[in-house]
Formats: sequence, C-alpha cells, structure tokens
Amino acid sequence: MRIPDIIHKKQHKQALTASEIAYFIDGYTAGTVGDDQAAALCMAIWFNGMDNRETADLTMAMARSGDQVDLSGIEGIKVDKHSSGGVADTTTIAVGPLAAACGGLLVKMSGRGLGHSGGTLDKLESIPGYNVHQKMEDFIRIVNTCGVSIIGQTATLAPADKKLYALRDVTSTVDTMPLIASSIMSKKLAAGSDRILLDVKWGNGAFMPTVPQAVELARIMVEIGKHAGKPTRALVTDMNQPLGNAVGNALEVIEAVKILRGEAEGDLKELIITLTVEILVMGEIYDTPEDARVRVVQALHDGSALRKLEQMIELHGGDPAVCNDLSLLPQAGRVVAAVAESSGYIIGMETGSIGLSTVMLGAGRERKDDAVDPAVGLWMKKRIGDYVEKGEPLAEFHINDTRNEQEAIELFLRAVHIGSEKPEKKPLIAEIIG
Amino acid sequence: MRIPDIIHKKQHKQALTASEIAYFIDGYTAGTVGDDQAAALCMAIWFNGMDNRETADLTMAMARSGDQVDLSGIEGIKVDKHSSGGVADTTTIAVGPLAAACGGLLVKMSGRGLGHSGGTLDKLESIPGYNVHQKMEDFIRIVNTCGVSIIGQTATLAPADKKLYALRDVTSTVDTMPLIASSIMSKKLAAGSDRILLDVKWGNGAFMPTVPQAVELARIMVEIGKHAGKPTRALVTDMNQPLGNAVGNALEVIEAVKILRGEAEGDLKELIITLTVEILVMGEIYDTPEDARVRVVQALHDGSALRKLEQMIELHGGDPAVCNDLSLLPQAGRVVAAVAESSGYIIGMETGSIGLSTVMLGAGRERKDDAVDPAVGLWMKKRIGDYVEKGEPLAEFHINDTRNEQEAIELFLRAVHIGSEKPEKKPLIAEIIG
Repeated sequence: MRIPDIIHKKQHKQALTASEIAYFIDGYTAGTVGDDQAAALCMAIWFNGMDNRETADLTMAMARSGDQVDLSGIEGIKVDKHSSGGVADTTTIAVGPLAAACGGLLVKMSGRGLGHSGGTLDKLESIPGYNVHQKMEDFIRIVNTCGVSIIGQTATLAPADKKLYALRDVTSTVDTMPLIASSIMSKKLAAGSDRILLDVKWGNGAFMPTVPQAVELARIMVEIGKHAGKPTRALVTDMNQPLGNAVGNALEVIEAVKILRGEAEGDLKELIITLTVEILVMGEIYDTPEDARVRVVQALHDGSALRKLEQMIELHGGDPAVCNDLSLLPQAGRVVAAVAESSGYIIGMETGSIGLSTVMLGAGRERKDDAVDPAVGLWMKKRIGDYVEKGEPLAEFHINDTRNEQEAIELFLRAVHIGSEKPEKKPLIAEIIG
Repeated sequence: MRIPDIIHKKQHKQALTASEIAYFIDGYTAGTVGDDQAAALCMAIWFNGMDNRETADLTMAMARSGDQVDLSGIEGIKVDKHSSGGVADTTTIAVGPLAAACGGLLVKMSGRGLGHSGGTLDKLESIPGYNVHQKMEDFIRIVNTCGVSIIGQTATLAPADKKLYALRDVTSTVDTMPLIASSIMSKKLAAGSDRILLDVKWGNGAFMPTVPQAVELARIMVEIGKHAGKPTRALVTDMNQPLGNAVGNALEVIEAVKILRGEAEGDLKELIITLTVEILVMGEIYDTPEDARVRVVQALHDGSALRKLEQMIELHGGDPAVCNDLSLLPQAGRVVAAVAESSGYIIGMETGSIGLSTVMLGAGRERKDDAVDPAVGLWMKKRIGDYVEKGEPLAEFHINDTRNEQEAIELFLRAVHIGSEKPEKKPLIAEIIG
C-alpha cells in the first residue's frame, strides 16, 4: 500500500477501504506518513468528500490511535454528551448533575474554550478547588459514587485527531463534513461511553451557519455512532443568540446553579431539560420522554439536582459551598452597563461577536495557550424579540482589565441589531436525529 | 498575508495575486511555510487550476528563489532548448554543435535520466573526460569560444522548484498543468538565456499521453515565456516510438556523431534539423526558416557541425577523438539480438517499456541515486510501419551485467506490437506554438 495511491484514489472520487484509511491514520500517528501527505489527502477529501462508511472507518481508526477508555468498571448505561460549541452554552454543567439526580449516568470529557466559544473545563475551573485533571480510576470512582463526572480529555485520547486537527487548521481544510464529524466522534468513541448525545448548534454563533448544514453534520455523526456500535442521537439547536444570559466562566456557573435551584427560566433551562430527558431515555432510566420530563422538572425544584452538583463539585476537589453562596465564585472588580443606542425590538444578534467581546476582556482565548480570567464576561439583559428603550441596558459587563473595555462594549453594541418590527421567534430545537 | 487564506482562495477558484504567490514561494523556500501548507495548496491547484497569469507569476517566483544566471558576458542572442523527455531523444547533443556551426548560440543546463527517460548529462558523461560540472565563468567562456555549452544544472537554480517537485512526488500532485509548466519554465527562466525553444513530447513514451495535452502544456509554457519577457516557442513532437535508433548513453552519442557526420537518416535527424532551424531564427541568425535550413543541411555535410562537436567536447575536458573513432566510447561486453516472434508490420511500440528495458540493464535510473552503465542499451533495427520477418532482429542489445538480460529482452519484445496491416504514419511534428 502506498500513500500517493491512496491520495490518487480520493482525487478521482473513489471510496477508500477501511484498510487504506487505517494505513493512513496508523502511519500518520506513527510519523511514517508525513504532514505533506496528510495535508494532500485532507484537501482531496475537502474537494471530493467521503461517504458515511468511509467517514466511520476514519473515525474508528482515529479512535484507535491512542488510549481507549475502559469504563466497564461502571455499572449501567453510560451516556456521553457533546455540544458542537457556542456562546453561553452552559448546558453540560447543569445537565450532568440533573441527569444523575434522576438516576442517569453522565460520563464526560470536556474541552477548553477557543475563539468565541466557551469551554466547560474553563467554566468548572472557576469553581475554587475543582480539579479537571483526574486519574481514570478516580473518574470511574466519582461516576460510581454520584452518577456524573466532568473532567478534561487526556492527552493520549485520539492523538491522530489532535495531530490532524492542528494540520487542518493551518491548511484550510477544517470546513469539510467528514473531517469535522470524524474529529468530534473519534474522541467520543475513544472516551468509553455506551451511548452518545450530540447537540449540534446552527447559526451565527456556531460552526455550522445553517440548519441544513447542522442537520447534515448531525446525520453523519449519528451514522458514525451506528457503524461503531454506539447508539447516537443528535439535537440541532439554535445558536443565533447566546443560549443563556451569562457569557463568561464564573458567570455561566452562576447561571447553571440558578437553573438547578429552579430560579431561572428561558432557552438555556429548556434545552437543559430536553437534553437531560434524552440522556435518561437513552440510558434506559425512563421508557418515555414524558415520564422522564416529569422527574427532571421535579429535580429542579426539590433540591436534588442542586445537591448532585454539590456532590460532583466536592468529589472533584471543589468547594460545594459555591452552590449556596455564589459570592464565593471569582468576581470582577467592575460592572458596566452596555446600553441601547436606540429604541426598538431586538431583531438579531451577531452571536460570535458577542462571544468575542468577552474574549477581549479575558473570558476566553484567542490562542490555545492564552490564560483566561474566570470572573469576567457579560450578563445579557435582553433576548431577540424583546423591546428595548434607548439608554436601557442590553447587558452588564463584568470587567477586571479595563484596557479593552471600550472596544469590547462597542463590539457588543454593534453585534446587537435593533429594528422596528418584532421578529418571528426561531424554534430552539430545529430537529432531532437518531 | 496568511497562507491558509491563500489556500482558501484557491479552494474557492479565485486567482491568486502575484504577491500572494511570491509570499508562498518565498516562505516555502525559507522554510517558514511548511510542507503541509504547500501540499494543501498544490492539491487545491490540482483541483482548481491556475490561469496563465498565475502560472507565470508562480514560475517567476520559483525562478527568483535561488541564483539567477547572468549571461550578459556573452554577446548575441542566447537560446536555450528543452525537451520534456523521452526515449532515444538525442537531439541536444547534436543540435547544440549544429546551431553553433551555423552561427547560433546554445546555452543549456541539462538534467539526468530518470525512469524510462534518458538524460543529456548521462549521455555526455559517456564521453571520456567530459565534465558537466563547470563554473559559471567557464560556462560563459566556453560559449564565447565555440557558441555552445551543455552542462549540469547548479544546485542553487530554482531551489523552490526542487523542493516543490519532491513534495508533489509523494502527494500525488505531479499531474497538473500549471505545476508541470512552472516547474520546467522556472529553471529555464533562472538559467539566463534570452529565448527558449521547447520540444514537448506526446505519446506513450512521454509525460503527456495525447496531442491535446501536449499542446496545452506547450501553450502554457509559451505564455509563461511571454509574461517573463523571454520569447518562447514550442514544438509538439511524436514520442510513440524511440525518436532515434539508439537507446543508452554512449550509443546515443554514437548516433549523434553519425548524424553530424551526415551518415544517418530518419526522424531523429529530421527533428535535429528542425530544432536547429528554430534556434537560428529565434537567435536572429537567419530571417527565414528556409534560409536557415539550407545552411543547417550544409553543416551536416561539410564537416563543420562535427568539428563544432569536437571543439565543444574538448572545451568541457573531454576527448574529441571519439568523433573520429567511436570505439573510444565505452563498449558493452556482449551484443544480443532481440528477434521478432512473428512476421508482419510493426504497428506500435510501448515506448516507455522500451526505455525501461534498457534501464533494467543499467542504462538509466529507477531511483535518483542509482549509478548508470554508459555502455549498455539497445539499437533499434526497425521502426513503426516496417515489415519484419519472424526471426529477424528487431533490436540489438548491448549488455554488460547479464542478470536482467532475459527479462529486459522479454519486456522489449512485449513492447513491440506486430500486426498484419501497415499502420498510418503519425507526423513527427504535430504542432508548432509561439
């Protein structure tokens, strides 16, 4: 087998066999296949695509390229949950404890924020003492104790994907469905869960700009799960405005806690409930979504979800007292309102820019190695469809480093579009696949 | 400027600017642009092509990537000549002295043979003492003395092309017109001649299998010459059988000498005359091809061309006596006839295989670093359209190492197709462009 022949096949729109794909991925992981050949193949895939069988074979080859987590030490059906990334998407921190409070098992290795998207690890690390770096035996022990653990991905998980992703980033081959889908799913397959729940975002704050593209990506990933023997479902959800109201690490933890206390309403809460219901049905805790939903809503009001979050925080070395005293979380030195420059309905938001306005303050990363400030960010006061008076606050900025303050607020204000007609509401959940 | 943005433009069929192309080539030469990014861009070019302006800019950027030969020390219009490579293509060794004998100036940096194609340097080195490695001042001195010099390409000529060609070889991006054309022409532009004559081969012994493909390549290269301010013409010529009768280094020198002595006829001689006429008209030695041709034919019979070859050999350190005593050239230990296995007309030849049958005996290289045996090869006894009796020799093999003898002869015999009907003759010169 020769790599140039494999590239040649893909150039001429032929499907690659499982063994050709494995030969490429194994060689690339081992370093016998060069970055040049990998880049050429990625570009050929960018032009000519891959069918679902090829994409699944690529995903499985990447999943096999490093450690494969063995979670057989955990009794029960373990569900993993993944979001394709967005702004104010705080679901995981609430969904995990909520599902566990209802008898489910959520096992989750999360990532960090990059660009306008936040990352669950950064959010969890705003909780004093929470350690996202857990040994595999502790991960298993925590799940066996409280039904949920959220930790960082180990470096040895799907190293082929890590290497390939870095390559795609510099070779303009990120935006192609088979490579996006296999990148996400390879880590999920290697992470050892039994079933996978995906939340694929669409819109101007998401990687997929339109519903059809998000649906296509979701379908491919569900097919990969099927090929790999891991039942997978996917929700396609709206990311044309921040999902919750809080954007920023500690602020998002605050919003998650408020939801688990039953103190907050809105799209974020609705999506948290829906995702949790899915996890409980996939985990065969409840037979129907209706039954699951009854229990989930109850858990938000009887304190059991909040207690589960406290337990999860404690088991990861964090201070559970934050759940009752939110002032124990990092707080920014300065709070500034960003006010509307005209009156009218909020007709749209450039969600990515809203995320970036908080990155400018230190809430996220422009580059992988940037440090984040856990306290800073913003709190949205309005959503699309709301009416706002000129001078009324659209958001409250939480700031420590004031150097970029003016620029960040200006970016935010440009990102919120005000018009005279109330816009139609987009459905939060566009489609469910699988 | 960012390389991923440049790649992205080409992915989306946009033309790259001269400065984008220069940024890529300069960075790639310096090592700040990686092989991965270069491979991705080459593949995007493979899919989406480049227009003539882009191709010319790429060529000029590669030509500028290393030393640019300054031949201003040579008075007169200096013409370079390049063949895209084939079997028994001994034209350069005869055309150079012949043009010089008629008042022209041929300055030529040649390459070595690879695969089924022979290389002029290997042929010249079969002449005892001939040194293809000349300092630039000696190259200039030799041309000023005798009107022709044929030497090896310096390592510092178009290093970007060298690097890019090695990359394309392992990434399945060799076969794309803009990259083929720019690779050839970048070295020609850097080599310092005033005008360029190209011989683009088509057929089963050439890189371009069909006339339209060879014509397309020729047109692109002529356009590059125009953009670069170097008038360029191209002949598209037949390579569906060995051009001359000799295949092998010393054997091809013998055939060239015989032509310059006026002792041989056929396609090789005809093409040598045509190419020389072109050089003389491009070099403004003669106003019309007709006038030039009269002098060229005369030079083949009055001994002046042969004397020019002797002078050229002597100035490069070689033994000019070979021109009068061909037995001074390396001779193989064993001569074996390959005889026809049936009677009939020769209806076609697999020219590449005929070349490879001599490579198996050591006349050429399978890999870049292989050594060649100057004495070995074969001498064709028949051409397409000739009638042959069963048992009659088709060729005479000249052999030293007998290990592959049987296999080489079998490969040769399979490559010569005999049928009952005399085939139509293909024109030697399909088209002249520029």
